Amino acid sequence: MKPNSHNIQYHFLICGNMRPEDSPLPSCGPRGGSAIADAFRAAIARRGWPARVKVTATGCLTPCLIGPNLVVYPEGVWYSGVSPSDVEEIVATHLDRGAVVERLLMPKEARLW
Amino acid sequence: MKPNSHNIQYHFLICGNMRPEDSPLPSCGPRGGSAIADAFRAAIARRGWPARVKVTATGCLTPCLIGPNLVVYPEGVWYSGVSPSDVEEIVATHLDRGAVVERLLMPKEARLW
Repeated sequence: MKPNSHNIQYHFLICGNMRPEDSPLPSCGPRGGSAIADAFRAAIARRGWPARVKVTATGCLTPCLIGPNLVVYPEGVWYSGVSPSDVEEIVATHLDRGAVVERLLMPKEARLW
Repeated sequence: MKPNSHNIQYHFLICGNMRPEDSPLPSCGPRGGSAIADAFRAAIARRGWPARVKVTATGCLTPCLIGPNLVVYPEGVWYSGVSPSDVEEIVATHLDRGAVVERLLMPKEARLW
Protein backbone atom coordinates (compact mmCIF):
# COMPACT_ATOMS: atom_id res chain seq x y z
CA MET A 1 0.00 0.00 0.00
CA LYS A 2 1.54 3.27 -1.15
CA PRO A 3 -0.26 6.27 0.39
CA ASN A 4 -0.18 9.65 -1.35
CA SER A 5 -1.07 11.84 1.61
CA HIS A 6 2.32 12.10 3.25
CA ASN A 7 1.87 15.81 3.78
CA ILE A 8 -1.20 15.46 5.97
CA GLN A 9 -0.25 15.17 9.61
CA TYR A 10 -3.78 15.33 11.03
CA HIS A 11 -7.16 15.10 9.39
CA PHE A 12 -9.99 15.97 11.80
CA LEU A 13 -13.29 14.54 10.52
CA ILE A 14 -16.29 15.79 12.48
CA CYS A 15 -19.82 14.44 12.24
CA GLY A 16 -22.26 17.16 11.21
CA ASN A 17 -25.09 14.82 10.35
CA MET A 18 -28.67 16.08 10.36
CA ARG A 19 -31.39 13.45 10.58
CA PRO A 20 -35.07 14.03 9.80
CA GLU A 21 -36.90 15.56 12.75
CA ASP A 22 -38.87 12.36 13.38
CA SER A 23 -35.76 10.18 13.62
CA PRO A 24 -35.48 8.18 16.84
CA LEU A 25 -31.75 8.87 16.83
CA PRO A 26 -30.12 12.17 17.73
CA SER A 27 -28.07 14.07 15.13
CA CYS A 28 -24.52 15.22 15.75
CA GLY A 29 -24.92 18.37 13.62
CA PRO A 30 -27.48 20.23 15.71
CA ARG A 31 -26.05 18.76 18.91
CA GLY A 32 -22.84 20.68 18.30
CA GLY A 33 -21.14 19.02 15.34
CA SER A 34 -21.28 22.11 13.17
CA ALA A 35 -20.01 24.36 15.96
CA ILE A 36 -17.27 21.84 16.70
CA ALA A 37 -16.06 21.94 13.09
CA ASP A 38 -16.02 25.75 13.23
CA ALA A 39 -14.13 25.61 16.52
CA PHE A 40 -11.53 23.27 14.99
CA ARG A 41 -11.01 25.64 12.08
CA ALA A 42 -10.64 28.57 14.44
CA ALA A 43 -8.25 26.76 16.77
CA ILE A 44 -6.06 25.66 13.88
CA ALA A 45 -6.21 29.09 12.27
CA ARG A 46 -4.91 30.57 15.54
CA ARG A 47 -1.87 28.36 15.02
CA GLY A 48 -1.37 29.72 11.51
CA TRP A 49 -3.38 26.85 9.99
CA PRO A 50 -0.55 24.36 9.56
CA ALA A 51 -0.62 23.15 5.98
CA ARG A 52 -0.59 19.60 7.17
CA VAL A 53 -3.91 19.83 9.01
CA LYS A 54 -7.30 19.36 7.39
CA VAL A 55 -10.75 19.78 8.95
CA THR A 56 -13.75 18.18 7.23
CA ALA A 57 -17.39 17.82 8.20
CA THR A 58 -18.92 14.41 7.56
CA GLY A 59 -22.19 12.56 7.44
CA CYS A 60 -23.06 10.01 10.10
CA LEU A 61 -20.02 8.45 11.78
CA THR A 62 -21.97 6.47 14.41
CA PRO A 63 -22.69 5.70 17.18
CA CYS A 64 -25.29 8.48 17.24
CA LEU A 65 -26.44 8.13 20.84
CA ILE A 66 -23.11 9.22 22.30
CA GLY A 67 -22.29 11.95 19.79
CA PRO A 68 -21.14 14.41 18.75
CA ASN A 69 -18.47 12.10 17.34
CA LEU A 70 -15.27 12.74 15.46
CA VAL A 71 -12.23 10.84 14.27
CA VAL A 72 -8.64 11.93 13.80
CA TYR A 73 -6.69 10.28 11.00
CA PRO A 74 -4.32 8.80 10.08
CA GLU A 75 -3.88 7.59 13.63
CA GLY A 76 -7.53 6.60 13.99
CA VAL A 77 -8.47 8.18 17.29
CA TRP A 78 -12.23 8.34 17.86
CA TYR A 79 -13.85 10.81 20.24
CA SER A 80 -17.45 10.99 21.42
CA GLY A 81 -19.55 13.37 23.47
CA VAL A 82 -17.42 16.26 22.28
CA SER A 83 -18.47 19.86 22.79
CA PRO A 84 -17.08 23.00 21.15
CA SER A 85 -15.36 23.87 24.43
CA ASP A 86 -13.30 20.66 24.15
CA VAL A 87 -11.82 21.56 20.78
CA GLU A 88 -8.91 23.70 21.93
CA GLU A 89 -7.78 20.87 24.22
CA ILE A 90 -8.05 18.31 21.40
CA VAL A 91 -6.08 20.46 18.98
CA ALA A 92 -3.47 21.34 21.58
CA THR A 93 -3.12 17.70 22.58
CA HIS A 94 -2.76 16.34 19.05
CA LEU A 95 -0.85 19.16 17.37
CA ASP A 96 1.26 20.36 20.24
CA ARG A 97 1.93 17.11 22.07
CA GLY A 98 1.07 14.29 19.65
CA ALA A 99 -1.14 12.72 22.31
CA VAL A 100 -4.81 11.94 22.87
CA VAL A 101 -7.47 13.37 25.21
CA GLU A 102 -8.18 10.26 27.27
CA ARG A 103 -11.40 11.55 28.87
CA LEU A 104 -13.11 11.98 25.47
CA LEU A 105 -12.08 8.70 23.83
CA MET A 106 -15.05 6.82 22.40
CA PRO A 107 -15.70 3.85 24.69
CA LYS A 108 -14.93 0.56 23.01
CA GLU A 109 -18.25 -0.93 24.14
CA ALA A 110 -20.21 1.86 22.44
CA ARG A 111 -18.65 1.33 19.03
CA LEU A 112 -20.53 -0.43 16.28
CA TRP A 113 -17.35 -1.80 14.72
CA MET B 1 -0.39 8.28 20.33
CA LYS B 2 -2.72 5.45 21.32
CA PRO B 3 -5.45 4.94 18.66
CA ASN B 4 -8.78 3.38 19.60
CA SER B 5 -9.90 2.27 16.14
CA HIS B 6 -7.94 -0.95 15.84
CA ASN B 7 -10.95 -2.73 14.41
CA ILE B 8 -11.29 -0.48 11.38
CA GLN B 9 -9.36 -1.81 8.43
CA TYR B 10 -10.63 0.66 5.84
CA HIS B 11 -12.61 3.86 6.17
CA PHE B 12 -13.76 5.18 2.79
CA LEU B 13 -14.60 8.90 3.05
CA ILE B 14 -16.30 10.27 -0.07
CA CYS B 15 -16.93 13.92 -0.82
CA GLY B 16 -20.63 14.61 -1.32
CA ASN B 17 -20.35 18.36 -1.07
CA MET B 18 -23.02 20.56 -2.59
CA ARG B 19 -22.10 24.19 -3.24
CA PRO B 20 -24.54 27.00 -3.94
CA GLU B 21 -25.58 27.08 -7.58
CA ASP B 22 -23.69 30.30 -8.22
CA SER B 23 -20.39 28.93 -6.91
CA PRO B 24 -17.49 29.19 -9.34
CA LEU B 25 -16.30 25.77 -8.16
CA PRO B 26 -17.89 22.45 -9.06
CA SER B 27 -19.40 20.25 -6.33
CA CYS B 28 -18.47 16.61 -5.87
CA GLY B 29 -21.97 15.61 -4.70
CA PRO B 30 -23.91 16.26 -7.89
CA ARG B 31 -20.91 15.29 -10.02
CA GLY B 32 -21.19 11.76 -8.70
CA GLY B 33 -20.14 11.85 -5.06
CA SER B 34 -23.49 10.71 -3.76
CA ALA B 35 -23.72 7.88 -6.30
CA ILE B 36 -20.14 6.92 -5.48
CA ALA B 37 -20.97 6.59 -1.77
CA ASP B 38 -23.98 4.43 -2.66
CA ALA B 39 -21.80 2.31 -4.95
CA PHE B 40 -19.27 1.81 -2.15
CA ARG B 41 -21.99 0.67 0.21
CA ALA B 42 -23.35 -1.73 -2.41
CA ALA B 43 -19.92 -3.13 -3.29
CA ILE B 44 -19.10 -3.69 0.37
CA ALA B 45 -22.52 -5.16 1.08
CA ARG B 46 -21.89 -7.69 -1.69
CA ARG B 47 -18.89 -8.81 0.33
CA GLY B 48 -21.02 -9.25 3.45
CA TRP B 49 -20.10 -5.79 4.71
CA PRO B 50 -16.98 -6.68 6.67
CA ALA B 51 -17.28 -5.18 10.14
CA ARG B 52 -13.96 -3.47 9.73
CA VAL B 53 -15.07 -1.32 6.79
CA LYS B 54 -16.82 2.03 7.11
CA VAL B 55 -18.22 4.28 4.36
CA THR B 56 -18.93 7.93 5.17
CA ALA B 57 -19.97 10.89 3.04
CA THR B 58 -18.14 14.14 3.76
CA GLY B 59 -18.22 17.83 3.07
CA CYS B 60 -15.59 19.42 0.85
CA LEU B 61 -12.32 17.48 0.71
CA THR B 62 -10.67 19.65 -2.00
CA PRO B 63 -9.41 20.08 -4.63
CA CYS B 64 -12.84 20.67 -6.16
CA LEU B 65 -11.79 21.09 -9.79
CA ILE B 66 -10.62 17.50 -10.16
CA GLY B 67 -13.35 15.81 -8.10
CA PRO B 68 -15.18 13.73 -7.23
CA ASN B 69 -12.57 13.13 -4.55
CA LEU B 70 -12.28 10.54 -1.80
CA VAL B 71 -9.77 9.35 0.75
CA VAL B 72 -9.15 5.94 2.23
CA TYR B 73 -7.91 5.82 5.81
CA PRO B 74 -5.96 4.88 7.81
CA GLU B 75 -3.49 4.48 4.96
CA GLY B 76 -4.25 7.94 3.54
CA VAL B 77 -4.77 7.19 -0.13
CA TRP B 78 -6.44 10.03 -2.03
CA TYR B 79 -8.32 9.52 -5.26
CA SER B 80 -9.74 12.10 -7.68
CA GLY B 81 -11.90 12.09 -10.79
CA VAL B 82 -13.68 9.01 -9.50
CA SER B 83 -16.90 7.78 -11.06
CA PRO B 84 -19.39 5.25 -9.69
CA SER B 85 -18.12 2.71 -12.24
CA ASP B 86 -14.65 2.87 -10.60
CA VAL B 87 -15.91 1.85 -7.19
CA GLU B 88 -15.89 -1.92 -7.61
CA GLU B 89 -12.25 -1.73 -8.72
CA ILE B 90 -11.32 0.46 -5.74
CA VAL B 91 -13.01 -1.83 -3.25
CA ALA B 92 -11.58 -4.96 -4.84
CA THR B 93 -8.10 -3.44 -4.93
CA HIS B 94 -8.10 -2.27 -1.31
CA LEU B 95 -10.10 -5.03 0.36
CA ASP B 96 -9.07 -7.97 -1.73
CA ARG B 97 -5.47 -7.09 -2.53
CA GLY B 98 -4.45 -4.36 -0.08
CA ALA B 99 -3.26 -2.25 -2.99
CA VAL B 100 -4.12 1.06 -4.67
CA VAL B 101 -5.67 1.97 -8.03
CA GLU B 102 -2.76 3.85 -9.54
CA ARG B 103 -4.71 5.43 -12.42
CA LEU B 104 -7.07 7.25 -10.01
CA LEU B 105 -4.53 8.55 -7.50
CA MET B 106 -4.90 12.26 -6.87
CA PRO B 107 -1.97 13.98 -8.60
CA LYS B 108 0.44 15.52 -6.15
CA GLU B 109 0.51 18.81 -8.07
CA ALA B 110 -3.26 19.18 -7.76
CA ARG B 111 -3.33 18.88 -3.99
CA LEU B 112 -3.76 21.94 -1.81
CA TRP B 113 -1.70 20.44 1.02
